[in-house]
Amino acid sequence: MTTHSSDSTGKQLHRSVINSAAYCDGVRVADVPIADLEDAWKNSDRLLWVGLCEPSESILMHLQHAFGLHDLVVEDAHRAHQRPKVEVYDDSMFVVIRTARLSDGGEHRIEFGETHVFLGPRYIITVRHGSLKSHAGVRARCEATPKLLAKGEGFVLHAVMDFIVDQYFPVIDALEAELDELEVHIFSGKFVRSVTERIYHLRRDLLAIKQAVTPLIEVSSQLTRTNSNLISADARPYFQDVHDHVIRIADLIDGLQQLSHTALESNLALISVAQNDDMKRLAAWAAILAVPTMIAGLYGMNFEFMPEIRWAWGYPASLLVMLSACLILYKSFRKTGWL
Amino acid sequence: MTTHSSDSTGKQLHRSVINSAAYCDGVRVADVPIADLEDAWKNSDRLLWVGLCEPSESILMHLQHAFGLHDLVVEDAHRAHQRPKVEVYDDSMFVVIRTARLSDGGEHRIEFGETHVFLGPRYIITVRHGSLKSHAGVRARCEATPKLLAKGEGFVLHAVMDFIVDQYFPVIDALEAELDELEVHIFSGKFVRSVTERIYHLRRDLLAIKQAVTPLIEVSSQLTRTNSNLISADARPYFQDVHDHVIRIADLIDGLQQLSHTALESNLALISVAQNDDMKRLAAWAAILAVPTMIAGLYGMNFEFMPEIRWAWGYPASLLVMLSACLILYKSFRKTGWL
Amino acid sequence: MTTHSSDSTGKQLHRSVINSAAYCDGVRVADVPIADLEDAWKNSDRLLWVGLCEPSESILMHLQHAFGLHDLVVEDAHRAHQRPKVEVYDDSMFVVIRTARLSDGGEHRIEFGETHVFLGPRYIITVRHGSLKSHAGVRARCEATPKLLAKGEGFVLHAVMDFIVDQYFPVIDALEAELDELEVHIFSGKFVRSVTERIYHLRRDLLAIKQAVTPLIEVSSQLTRTNSNLISADARPYFQDVHDHVIRIADLIDGLQQLSHTALESNLALISVAQNDDMKRLAAWAAILAVPTMIAGLYGMNFEFMPEIRWAWGYPASLLVMLSACLILYKSFRKTGWL
Amino acid sequence: MTTHSSDSTGKQLHRSVINSAAYCDGVRVADVPIADLEDAWKNSDRLLWVGLCEPSESILMHLQHAFGLHDLVVEDAHRAHQRPKVEVYDDSMFVVIRTARLSDGGEHRIEFGETHVFLGPRYIITVRHGSLKSHAGVRARCEATPKLLAKGEGFVLHAVMDFIVDQYFPVIDALEAELDELEVHIFSGKFVRSVTERIYHLRRDLLAIKQAVTPLIEVSSQLTRTNSNLISADARPYFQDVHDHVIRIADLIDGLQQLSHTALESNLALISVAQNDDMKRLAAWAAILAVPTMIAGLYGMNFEFMPEIRWAWGYPASLLVMLSACLILYKSFRKTGWL
Amino acid sequence: MTTHSSDSTGKQLHRSVINSAAYCDGVRVADVPIADLEDAWKNSDRLLWVGLCEPSESILMHLQHAFGLHDLVVEDAHRAHQRPKVEVYDDSMFVVIRTARLSDGGEHRIEFGETHVFLGPRYIITVRHGSLKSHAGVRARCEATPKLLAKGEGFVLHAVMDFIVDQYFPVIDALEAELDELEVHIFSGKFVRSVTERIYHLRRDLLAIKQAVTPLIEVSSQLTRTNSNLISADARPYFQDVHDHVIRIADLIDGLQQLSHTALESNLALISVAQNDDMKRLAAWAAILAVPTMIAGLYGMNFEFMPEIRWAWGYPASLLVMLSACLILYKSFRKTGWL
Repeated sequence: MTTHSSDSTGKQLHRSVINSAAYCDGVRVADVPIADLEDAWKNSDRLLWVGLCEPSESILMHLQHAFGLHDLVVEDAHRAHQRPKVEVYDDSMFVVIRTARLSDGGEHRIEFGETHVFLGPRYIITVRHGSLKSHAGVRARCEATPKLLAKGEGFVLHAVMDFIVDQYFPVIDALEAELDELEVHIFSGKFVRSVTERIYHLRRDLLAIKQAVTPLIEVSSQLTRTNSNLISADARPYFQDVHDHVIRIADLIDGLQQLSHTALESNLALISVAQNDDMKRLAAWAAILAVPTMIAGLYGMNFEFMPEIRWAWGYPASLLVMLSACLILYKSFRKTGWL
Repeated sequence: MTTHSSDSTGKQLHRSVINSAAYCDGVRVADVPIADLEDAWKNSDRLLWVGLCEPSESILMHLQHAFGLHDLVVEDAHRAHQRPKVEVYDDSMFVVIRTARLSDGGEHRIEFGETHVFLGPRYIITVRHGSLKSHAGVRARCEATPKLLAKGEGFVLHAVMDFIVDQYFPVIDALEAELDELEVHIFSGKFVRSVTERIYHLRRDLLAIKQAVTPLIEVSSQLTRTNSNLISADARPYFQDVHDHVIRIADLIDGLQQLSHTALESNLALISVAQNDDMKRLAAWAAILAVPTMIAGLYGMNFEFMPEIRWAWGYPASLLVMLSACLILYKSFRKTGWL
Repeated sequence: MTTHSSDSTGKQLHRSVINSAAYCDGVRVADVPIADLEDAWKNSDRLLWVGLCEPSESILMHLQHAFGLHDLVVEDAHRAHQRPKVEVYDDSMFVVIRTARLSDGGEHRIEFGETHVFLGPRYIITVRHGSLKSHAGVRARCEATPKLLAKGEGFVLHAVMDFIVDQYFPVIDALEAELDELEVHIFSGKFVRSVTERIYHLRRDLLAIKQAVTPLIEVSSQLTRTNSNLISADARPYFQDVHDHVIRIADLIDGLQQLSHTALESNLALISVAQNDDMKRLAAWAAILAVPTMIAGLYGMNFEFMPEIRWAWGYPASLLVMLSACLILYKSFRKTGWL
Repeated sequence: MTTHSSDSTGKQLHRSVINSAAYCDGVRVADVPIADLEDAWKNSDRLLWVGLCEPSESILMHLQHAFGLHDLVVEDAHRAHQRPKVEVYDDSMFVVIRTARLSDGGEHRIEFGETHVFLGPRYIITVRHGSLKSHAGVRARCEATPKLLAKGEGFVLHAVMDFIVDQYFPVIDALEAELDELEVHIFSGKFVRSVTERIYHLRRDLLAIKQAVTPLIEVSSQLTRTNSNLISADARPYFQDVHDHVIRIADLIDGLQQLSHTALESNLALISVAQNDDMKRLAAWAAILAVPTMIAGLYGMNFEFMPEIRWAWGYPASLLVMLSACLILYKSFRKTGWL
Repeated sequence: MTTHSSDSTGKQLHRSVINSAAYCDGVRVADVPIADLEDAWKNSDRLLWVGLCEPSESILMHLQHAFGLHDLVVEDAHRAHQRPKVEVYDDSMFVVIRTARLSDGGEHRIEFGETHVFLGPRYIITVRHGSLKSHAGVRARCEATPKLLAKGEGFVLHAVMDFIVDQYFPVIDALEAELDELEVHIFSGKFVRSVTERIYHLRRDLLAIKQAVTPLIEVSSQLTRTNSNLISADARPYFQDVHDHVIRIADLIDGLQQLSHTALESNLALISVAQNDDMKRLAAWAAILAVPTMIAGLYGMNFEFMPEIRWAWGYPASLLVMLSACLILYKSFRKTGWL
């Protein structure tokens, strides 16, 4: 790649480049244009940190050339929808992590994104796909602790992962709150279609998060055990810490999955209980109405010889009988709990 | 940290310090103020046991400085909601255990807490979060067996874990009793909404306990296998014993989980059986009422030529027919079990 | 412990001691009082076999002193409700097995018990908790094959385990028979509350047995692999045999668990089918009754101009119409299978 | 055992001996009476293949003596109901496999059997329990490929296993066909009790087959990896092939289990849908009948001042109103899908 | 095999041979007739790639002779319905992969096929069974990147696998779309039989795909780890990439399986809710009709002394009462949500 081609692509590149800076002893010392990265990397001992967002193929090929990245990895970085993983090469590393955050709107919609990290001696490239916001702020946080940043690229990777993993907690809190709310609805005795639908969507969200988080257990564990010299020995407890958080998140999701399933089954049972209650109420009222109807039918018969018919008090008496029958039925239904 | 700063924080510290004592040959020989811990640790061979409760950051930083604890661990100890785990460093160990106890009220509410233990040569720091009561008494129990206490910090860790693990048994007994009670309700044939709700809450409690206990299996097993010299070889059978108890608790929880699920399904099946029975009863009574209504309808017809109408015994005969029909229906319904 | 103290406890001890004998070349040569066990063990090369039943703490402490047993193990042996396990010490072994047998009454109630075995060079102590009968007969069986008994304490342990494991088979046969009986009830079309209740209790029993048997898989496997010299190489195929039996039992339980779950679900489905059938029958009869009621209602109207009313054959014709309508409905309901 | 006793048992033995022959270079060269097996084995280098069917204890003891078989193994071979397994001894091997075949009758009944194989240098003993037919033909097939038979006892074992495993496929095909047939019934909308019962029995059969096949995975894998010199290196791909078949069978069973469970759940859902449809139909017809009944009731009232009563067209008008009401209801019910 | 026999089979062979070519440095240099393959393989260093489709036994035996393939493998290649697997021999490899693609018709029908690959030094034989189209295009794609093709037979294997695995994604997308569509139906409140049937078929398809994909995880992982020199070290990241895709597909299937199960359960719950709603509506209308019927019945009674009967406004008043009762009922049912 000649200087010329660098220049010509330079313009195009800037759009998806969020940040590209050199750090010395944990302190940002200079912004480095994409075109100058190869020079800066080969001719100085500063740490380079490039942040990209949904980069074009040309930018990735430029970086591949600059840092000598593997073909397959660059291909992967261009496509989103990767499974979280870590790939260790001789002197570089490629990490894929999935991000999750609540959307800004009021409803609990979860936005997923992906962060790909290329790590090598004295350089780290972070590539974001999907939701931008899901890791805004990580660079600022790193720069706020130059002591850790000075420890090199492994610590930057930790900071990125820690940041992303921590963002799962509010998402899970929101899902937990949703389940709590659903519980109230389920046990309130009102069975509306929306409760089942909300449980379904809760379970769908939990599944999506679980699929994002589960591979992270292996990824973080691998980073704890790796003998790549990109991750120094004193960085391991930090990755272990991330690993603990990931396992805790997986535990929480697992618990919510099981609980939401029990909620679904309880919902079904309670719908049946409610149906039974309603049917009994219906039956009781039907009986209460059927009895006077039957008695009235009796006195609607046209027999010539029906002594009661001719009695002066026949009519009010029959009304009284009907009323009494209704009252007795009503009271006994109340007693057996049908009403 | 100078003597001055120690003094200044001294006042603040005392609030969350429950106990801080030095032991010699298993016997408590002196109370050691927090400020003097570093001195006491470095200049004597006594065992120091510090008990804290929801400590402030400043206290933890003081102890970190005194005993040289790892940054991450101190950060963890400050935050509750850790997953039970054991972290082994070169010459120290950090253990997180979750505690559970029944609340004092009549209802079976479970209070969860957390205990963090820092273990190093000749010192042990226990930090409680949440429910205080859940490990009151452990120090007294330890001091009652100076022979074991004299064996050092590993045995104190065992005593703390054994104490906490033993507290799970009454909680599980209570949940078992709750399930037994629910069984009676389920098979009594009365389907009230509360049974399903109670099964749900039972399953929720079981899930919460399971998540507290499951990681303890790995923690206790790790302590049995660890080659840290904080846990001497003769302490291992003791941790194996704790491990056995934890597995037994996990087994019990597992059994209750499966049984409560079967209970939920049985509940659903019995609700359907009850619904069916009620529907049949309703149908039977509807039929018994419909027959005389129909007959009465017949004789309510205004045809001019209806011989029965003019018979003297027409009316009582029709009543007799209705009554007989009702009785025959009633008896046959009794026979087929619909009534 | 002096001779005196042995004597003083001697009386108390005898109550829970079932048997205490010395064997030479597989043949019982002498009964050994508890107080003389230590002597007999240290000063002869006979095999000592002590059988206890729910022993008091004093007896256990006596034996601990005699054979040098571990503190924890003795503590365990005193408490029942241990999980099946094997603990291998330098020159001794502690095995916990759970026993199960059908109660003598007609109903299929399962009695669980526990057997603890202390094994060491030239001695074996078996401690029974719970159901006594569940391993009565094992000593007699062993003494019947002196050739195997002569091979030492490892073979006695095998005999005890084999005996206990074999007792699970009739229990499982009984549960299998219960499920077969339930199947007949489920598919007979009669849905009584008791079927669901019996499935529930079957599943509860299966769960209890599974929890007793599952740890035995690991226990028997460990005894096959152990390199303790208490289990000689030629004893291993025998423990492998026990292991095979345990796995077979676990398989059978697993099958019954799955099948009983399918039975529960089938039961639920068939209850719904029955409900549907009943509802259709109810609907059909309601229709058959409603049609003549409606026709009768028509001719009960008081219009002045109703030609049919005045016809001589109006009344019998109307009855014929009603009857025909009922018959047509009845036949068509029969055809569609509603009746 | 003297020559005399061999002779005396000789008669008895022949009943359960199906075949006993010597092979040289894969070709059957002689039939060998049971009594002469020991001689033939020790004094020639021919391969001996003995086929037994539910042998008596005496025959097994005879063979045990002849080939030096292990006590436990002979005991096992006498009892059926073993779990499939392979036991490797110093210079012999004991393999238990369960066989399955469809019964000859039209219904899909599965007959299970057991084949035990003793394998040693230059001899193989196959013992059948249960269904005889389930491995008739294996010897003929082996004799048809003398090239493979000449490779020795390991290849005979392979042939027996391959034969038995291949017989599972038609059984599974039959169960698959049964499920296909059930699917048609389930989705046809007719809910008869027998569908649920057939799903139940299908699941029961699948469970039984699974329990026969699952241990075979481990057995065949173990034979692939074993370093016994009874299985030569060039025989391993053949056992690997059996292993692949077993895994495929297990996969198929697993798929059928999951699918039949979904079928059971779909069945339940569709029963509910059908119930709902029937209830709506019932409700619609009830409404259609109730409206004219109510109108007729109105004109059955005995009020003196009812103008319509005296109108000449009152009666036909009222009939028209009733008919119109019924038609309107009918049409609107058709529209909403209730009818 | 003599030249003559080669010639004679030559004609027959061509039918199932799709392609047979020699490559030099990744470029196709010649078509090689099947009969000349042995010569071409032994006497040149070109890479031979033979593509067959459901070959006859004779063709396979010809190739077996030419390249020295294993008996068992050739037998396998002739039969379809193999489980995906990889078998590594000394200097050759046999890989079975299952293919899946959507049928061309509008409905989502999945066509499964099988591809068998024989791999050896400088030759690769691909054998297709079932759906031809499912890997049409792979050779063209390979020939388009001669750089990779030049790297040898390992890379061709990768290209074939990559191609086949990539074809799973559109299939899964289609199933995901089907579930999305079903969700809409489920939560729309219309319960038609077809929804349950479609969920069932979706689950059946998912199961079939899962059984095709799951073994591929092990196959691709094995190819990553294998130390056969057919797969060079620089080919491993490529197989790792295939492995990642397979795991991602398995994840997606797993998610769809769980979600479709929740959909089935939600469907069941909503059917019950709908049934309940319909029953309440029915009950409400029944009540609304029953009240005027009962009142009309009252005034149909033939008592001589009923003052209302003689009132001029009796009839309209009674109608008003009925109407009011109906309206009040209607309103209160609206309020409680029954209507």
